[in-house]
Amino acid sequence: VRFASDNTSGVCPEVLRAIAAEAGRDDAAYGDDRATARLTEALSTVFEREVSVFPVATGTAANSLALAATNPPWGGVLCHRSAHIAVDELAAPTVIGGGLTLMPVDGEHGRLTPDALTAAFARIDHGVHTVPITGLSLTQSTEAGTRYRVEDLRALVDVARAHDLVVHADGARFANAVAATGASPAELTWNSGVHILSLGATKGGAMAAEAVVVLEPDVVDAFERHRKRHGHLLSKQRFVSAQFLGWLADDAWLRHADHANAMADRLGRGLVEAGLELLHPVETNMVFVALDDPTEAAWRDGGASFYTLPLGDGRREARLVTSWSTTTGQVDALVDLAARCGPPA
Amino acid sequence: VRFASDNTSGVCPEVLRAIAAEAGRDDAAYGDDRATARLTEALSTVFEREVSVFPVATGTAANSLALAATNPPWGGVLCHRSAHIAVDELAAPTVIGGGLTLMPVDGEHGRLTPDALTAAFARIDHGVHTVPITGLSLTQSTEAGTRYRVEDLRALVDVARAHDLVVHADGARFANAVAATGASPAELTWNSGVHILSLGATKGGAMAAEAVVVLEPDVVDAFERHRKRHGHLLSKQRFVSAQFLGWLADDAWLRHADHANAMADRLGRGLVEAGLELLHPVETNMVFVALDDPTEAAWRDGGASFYTLPLGDGRREARLVTSWSTTTGQVDALVDLAARCGPPA
Amino acid sequence: VRFASDNTSGVCPEVLRAIAAEAGRDDAAYGDDRATARLTEALSTVFEREVSVFPVATGTAANSLALAATNPPWGGVLCHRSAHIAVDELAAPTVIGGGLTLMPVDGEHGRLTPDALTAAFARIDHGVHTVPITGLSLTQSTEAGTRYRVEDLRALVDVARAHDLVVHADGARFANAVAATGASPAELTWNSGVHILSLGATKGGAMAAEAVVVLEPDVVDAFERHRKRHGHLLSKQRFVSAQFLGWLADDAWLRHADHANAMADRLGRGLVEAGLELLHPVETNMVFVALDDPTEAAWRDGGASFYTLPLGDGRREARLVTSWSTTTGQVDALVDLAARCGPPA
Amino acid sequence: VRFASDNTSGVCPEVLRAIAAEAGRDDAAYGDDRATARLTEALSTVFEREVSVFPVATGTAANSLALAATNPPWGGVLCHRSAHIAVDELAAPTVIGGGLTLMPVDGEHGRLTPDALTAAFARIDHGVHTVPITGLSLTQSTEAGTRYRVEDLRALVDVARAHDLVVHADGARFANAVAATGASPAELTWNSGVHILSLGATKGGAMAAEAVVVLEPDVVDAFERHRKRHGHLLSKQRFVSAQFLGWLADDAWLRHADHANAMADRLGRGLVEAGLELLHPVETNMVFVALDDPTEAAWRDGGASFYTLPLGDGRREARLVTSWSTTTGQVDALVDLAARCGPPA
Repeated sequence: VRFASDNTSGVCPEVLRAIAAEAGRDDAAYGDDRATARLTEALSTVFEREVSVFPVATGTAANSLALAATNPPWGGVLCHRSAHIAVDELAAPTVIGGGLTLMPVDGEHGRLTPDALTAAFARIDHGVHTVPITGLSLTQSTEAGTRYRVEDLRALVDVARAHDLVVHADGARFANAVAATGASPAELTWNSGVHILSLGATKGGAMAAEAVVVLEPDVVDAFERHRKRHGHLLSKQRFVSAQFLGWLADDAWLRHADHANAMADRLGRGLVEAGLELLHPVETNMVFVALDDPTEAAWRDGGASFYTLPLGDGRREARLVTSWSTTTGQVDALVDLAARCGPPA
Repeated sequence: VRFASDNTSGVCPEVLRAIAAEAGRDDAAYGDDRATARLTEALSTVFEREVSVFPVATGTAANSLALAATNPPWGGVLCHRSAHIAVDELAAPTVIGGGLTLMPVDGEHGRLTPDALTAAFARIDHGVHTVPITGLSLTQSTEAGTRYRVEDLRALVDVARAHDLVVHADGARFANAVAATGASPAELTWNSGVHILSLGATKGGAMAAEAVVVLEPDVVDAFERHRKRHGHLLSKQRFVSAQFLGWLADDAWLRHADHANAMADRLGRGLVEAGLELLHPVETNMVFVALDDPTEAAWRDGGASFYTLPLGDGRREARLVTSWSTTTGQVDALVDLAARCGPPA
Repeated sequence: VRFASDNTSGVCPEVLRAIAAEAGRDDAAYGDDRATARLTEALSTVFEREVSVFPVATGTAANSLALAATNPPWGGVLCHRSAHIAVDELAAPTVIGGGLTLMPVDGEHGRLTPDALTAAFARIDHGVHTVPITGLSLTQSTEAGTRYRVEDLRALVDVARAHDLVVHADGARFANAVAATGASPAELTWNSGVHILSLGATKGGAMAAEAVVVLEPDVVDAFERHRKRHGHLLSKQRFVSAQFLGWLADDAWLRHADHANAMADRLGRGLVEAGLELLHPVETNMVFVALDDPTEAAWRDGGASFYTLPLGDGRREARLVTSWSTTTGQVDALVDLAARCGPPA
Repeated sequence: VRFASDNTSGVCPEVLRAIAAEAGRDDAAYGDDRATARLTEALSTVFEREVSVFPVATGTAANSLALAATNPPWGGVLCHRSAHIAVDELAAPTVIGGGLTLMPVDGEHGRLTPDALTAAFARIDHGVHTVPITGLSLTQSTEAGTRYRVEDLRALVDVARAHDLVVHADGARFANAVAATGASPAELTWNSGVHILSLGATKGGAMAAEAVVVLEPDVVDAFERHRKRHGHLLSKQRFVSAQFLGWLADDAWLRHADHANAMADRLGRGLVEAGLELLHPVETNMVFVALDDPTEAAWRDGGASFYTLPLGDGRREARLVTSWSTTTGQVDALVDLAARCGPPA
C-alpha cells in the first residue's frame, strides 16, 4: 500500500495512448508543432478564454518560471508557510526568479486568509531598502489537501488587487480542486482574479506534463526567454502536449481526480472510525492524521508508505495521498491496518 | 522530406515499449526508483566504470548543470565557436552556472584543436580581474557533423590537463560518434580524460531523455543541489530512466545511430553526385552543403525542410540532419530533388 | 536634533586626517598597497590573531560577500527576524549569495537565543528538496541596540557547532559592542566561535569604510572572486584602508563608540524621566520608545528626526540613534522636547 | 616613475577640500542629501539636459548597473574586444546583469566601427534560442587611449538605432575625451545618441567617485533597485557627491584631464624620438609602445612601472598611463630611460 505521494503512481491509459499515437509522427521541435497548437486550443476551451500555454517537464519549473515572468527580480511573493514553492523546491523560485523573495504567511489548514495577507503589509517600508510585495501565490488544491472555494479566492484577490499584486496559482493538483468544488476552471482562475496558473498533469496520471497557463497575455516574451535560459524548453515538446491532450480528452482528467478524491474520502472516514484524528478536513486527495511513534512504527511494519513531519508536541503528522490509480482495496487495507494498530495513545 | 533536425523524429519502438512497461507500475518519486538504479548499472557497464547518472529532460539542462557542478561561478569554459552551448541555449550555461563565462574558440569543421586551446591562454592575466579558464567543453559528435577520434581527444585533453581544466563532453549525438568511430564509450570519455558527459538519447530515438554521466565522482552533491534548484529534478524520473533502458538494451542505441549515419553518408554521396559542394566531411548524421538563394528556394518549393545560416559570401550553408527514422526513400527523394534543381551557380 | 541614524553623522577628524595624508601619495591600485598591508597588521593586532582583511565601501557588500564566500548558494542562513540583512538590504545577501536563503528567527530585544536556533531545525527535512541550514548570522551590537555578552555568544555558537554552521557577525556597530561589553574583539569573535566578521567603521566616524575580517582562513580565494565579480573591489582601495587606520589608531574607534553609547544612555534616562517607555534595554547607541500619533507629530514639529515602525497596537516604535558626533546639547534638547510634549496617552 | 595606471595617483586638492567641507556636516543618508541634489543640478548643467545621477564607488559597479538597468537579463551587449567590461571585470556585467551576454567585436586602436557592428548581426538567428543583441557599450576615451569624435559616435549610433539598441558609454576616462576632442559633454553623449553614461572621477583625481548619468529617464526605478540589491548604495553617499562637486567646480576636471593628456603627448613624442614604435595614436592619456624582453627588463630595472600584454609576435605591448598628478619630470625621466635603453631590436 503506497500513500507517499500521487507522484508514485504510474501513467494512466489515456496518456499512454496519446504518447504512442504521437510517437509514430515527425513534427517540428521546440513547440512549433501540431500537438502544442491543439493543446492551446483545448485549454482555451477548458478555461473559456484565449490562453497562452507553455508545457514543461516539472512543477518546480512551472511555478518558478511563472513567478519569474510576472514579478521583478527584486520583488516579493506572498505564499502560505507550507507552500511547495517555499518548502520543497530548494529555493528554485528565488534562483529562477533572479533573487525573488518568498514571503511565507500563516493560515489554518494550508489556506491563506485575507486578514493574513493584509497583515503582511503592516511592516516598516524603508523604500528602496525594502523588498516590495509584488505577487501572491496560492496553491489550489492546497498542500493540506484543502481547497479554496470561489468566494475564498475572491476575498484573497481583493487584497491582492488593493496592493496591485500579480496572482499565481500553483495547480499541481488543480484537477482535484475542480472536481471537488464543482466550480469551473474559469471560475477558479481568471474569473476570480488569478493571472497565471501552473497546471499539473503529472500527479493526475501523466508521465511528466506541467503547463503554465497564462491568462493575462503580456508576459509571453519574458516567459519564453526565461524558459529557454533556464533549460526548460523541450525539443520534443509535442510529447508533453500530447500527454495533456490525452489527459484532457473526454474529461479523463476530472474523472481521475474525482476518483482520487473519493479514495481520500473513503480513507479519511475509515481512519476516523479506526479512532484516528484528522488534522485537516479531507477536501481533495490527501488525508492527514496524527500518529505517535509506536503507531507510526506499527503502520510502517504493516507495509504502509507515507511521509511525516514533526507536529512539535511529540507526535507526527502523517500525510496520506491517493491518486487516480489508488484502489478501494488499497484504501481498505490501510484502514484495516490502522484499526489493527489502534489509535495513538 | 524532413531534414531540419533529428529532434523532429518520433519515438523509437524500443523506447515506447519501455515507457509502456513502466506505466503500469508504482515506484518512488525523484529518482529513488528501480529504473534509475538499473540505469546506473547499465551505464556503468556501458562505460566500464562505476558512474553516477542524473537523468534530466533537456540537453540544455544536462550541459548547463554539468558545467555548473564542475566549474566555479567565476570560471570560464573553452568551447568551439559553433558549440550548441555557445550559440543555441540563450546563455543557459551562464545563467545556471551562476555567471560562468563561455569562451568560444575557432576550429575547422566544428572541431577544436590543441593549438587553438593553447592560444586561448596567451592573453593578459590580470589576476582577480580576469576570468580564469577552468573548463573545456567539447561536442562529440560535433555541431558540424564531424567527430573526434581517440587521438584527437587525447591531444585536446593534454592541453586541458596542463592547465588543470575540467573536461565536459556534450554528447547530444554521442551515440553517432560511438557508432562512427568504433571506439568504445570508455575510450571516448574517461579513458581519454573526459570528466563528465551529457549523454543524449532524445535525438537518437527517445522522447525526452538526457543523462549527465559523472565519470569523476566528487561533484554529486553539488550536482543534485543545482539540479533541484534549477527545477530539473523530475518527480516521475523513472520514466526518463526507462526510456534510456529501452534505448540501451540490445544495443538499440548504436543500431539507430549507425542507421542515421548511413543515411547521412548516402545523402552526402548523392548530393555530391548532384554537383553540390560538401562544406564539412560527412562523419556522422549531418550533411552540410552550400546553396545560393535560387537553389534554396527551389529545394523548399520541392518540399525540403532544413535550417540554413549565412556563409558570408552571399551563399547559405544548409544543414541536413538524418535520424534513426530517416528512410532511404526520403534520402533518395532529396537527392533527386537536388539533381533536378541542379547545383548552385 | 538628528537621531535618524548614525549614518547621518559626518566624518571624524582622525579619519579625515588619514585620508588627507594618503591623498598626496601614489600607490598601487586594487589593494596591493601599503595602507592595506598596514591595515591587515593593525587588525591582526586588534583581533590577536592573523586575519585576512577585505575593505569595501558598504555594509551590505560586506555582509553579502561574507555570506557568499562561506555558504553554498543553495544554503540557508539563520538570522534574527529584525536583522539588517533580512529586512533592510533588498535581498542583497540572496542576490550576491547566488540564491542563498535567509531564515528569520524570532527573539526578544533583537537577540537570537539558543532555543530559537534549535527550534529552527525541527522541521521536515526532505533531502535535496529542502534548503540545508548552513550558516548563522548574528548582529553585534543588535538592531535593537542590545548586545551579546561572551556567554550569550558561546551558547549560540554551541548550537551552531552542533549543526556545523558557519558563523558570521554583522558588526556594523561592533565598536559599540566592544565599548559596551568591555570584552576584547577576540573574545567577541573567533574566541567565541565567530568565523567571519563585517566590521563597520562608517557609522562610527568614517566616510565609507567597511571591512570583512576573515578569522578562518580558507575562503580568501572565493571572497576575492566574489568581491570583484559583484563590483566591490575599489581601485583606490587604499583610501578605505586609510580610513580604518585613522579610526583604529590610538583607540579612536573605541572612544567614539563609548561616547555614542554614553549619549544613548543619557537620552534613555532622560526619556524615562519624561515618562516614556523604553521598548528595549539601552545597551549601546540606540534608544527605542513607544509613541502614539499625536506625540510623534509633536516631536517632529519640534524638529526631531527619527525612524518609526508600527508596533501593531496603534502605537509606533521610535528609533533614536546617537553617534560619535552627538552632543549632550542635542540629547538634552530632545529630552526637553519630550518632556514638553509629555508621554503618550 | 609610475605609469601603471591613473588609478595609482592620489586625490587632487579640489576633491580633498570638498570632502573636508562635507565632513563637518550632518545630512540624510542614502542619497537623500543636499550634496547629491547639488550634483544632479551640476551635471544637468554640464550635460545641458535634466539628468538622473547615481553615485557609486567603483567603475565596475557603474558599468554593470548601467547595463543591468537598460538591457533584459537575456540580452546581449556589443562591445570592443578590449573593453574593460569584457576583459577586466571578472564578468561583473554578466553577474549583475542577471546573465547578460557580452559580445566582443574587433576594431583597430580600441575603436568600434560601424561595419564591425553591422557584421555582428550577420549570424544565424534561431529565435528564442539565440541571445538577442539589445545593447551597445562603447568606451570614451577607449582602452587604447584613442577617442571617438562626434562623427564617429554618430556613425556607430546609426547602426545601433537601426537595431533598436540601448547605447551605454563607459566614461572612466570621459574627461580625457572631452578635453581632447573639444566637443561638449552633450555632443559626446545624448546629442549623439548615448542613453546612459558611466562617468568616472576616480582616475581623474577623486578618491572613489563614479556616477551613472541617466540621459534617458525611464530606467530610474530599475536602476535604484539593482543598485541596492547588489550592495552599491552608499549610506554616506553624499561624500561621493561631494567629491564630484569638488572635481567639477571651476572645470577642475577638464584642467586635470588636459594636463594628463598633455603629459601623454609629451611622453609619446619623447619615446618616438628615442626610437620606439607607438602602437596606437596618442589621443588622450595613454601611450602604447612595443617592447622586447630585454628592453622591458631594462626599463623595469630603471624603475619604470607599467603593465604589458603579449603581442603574439614575441614582443609585448607596454601601456603607459599619465594622470592629473604626472609631472614633466616623471615623463622626461622615463623618456631618458628609454633613450638610454635604446629601441628594441
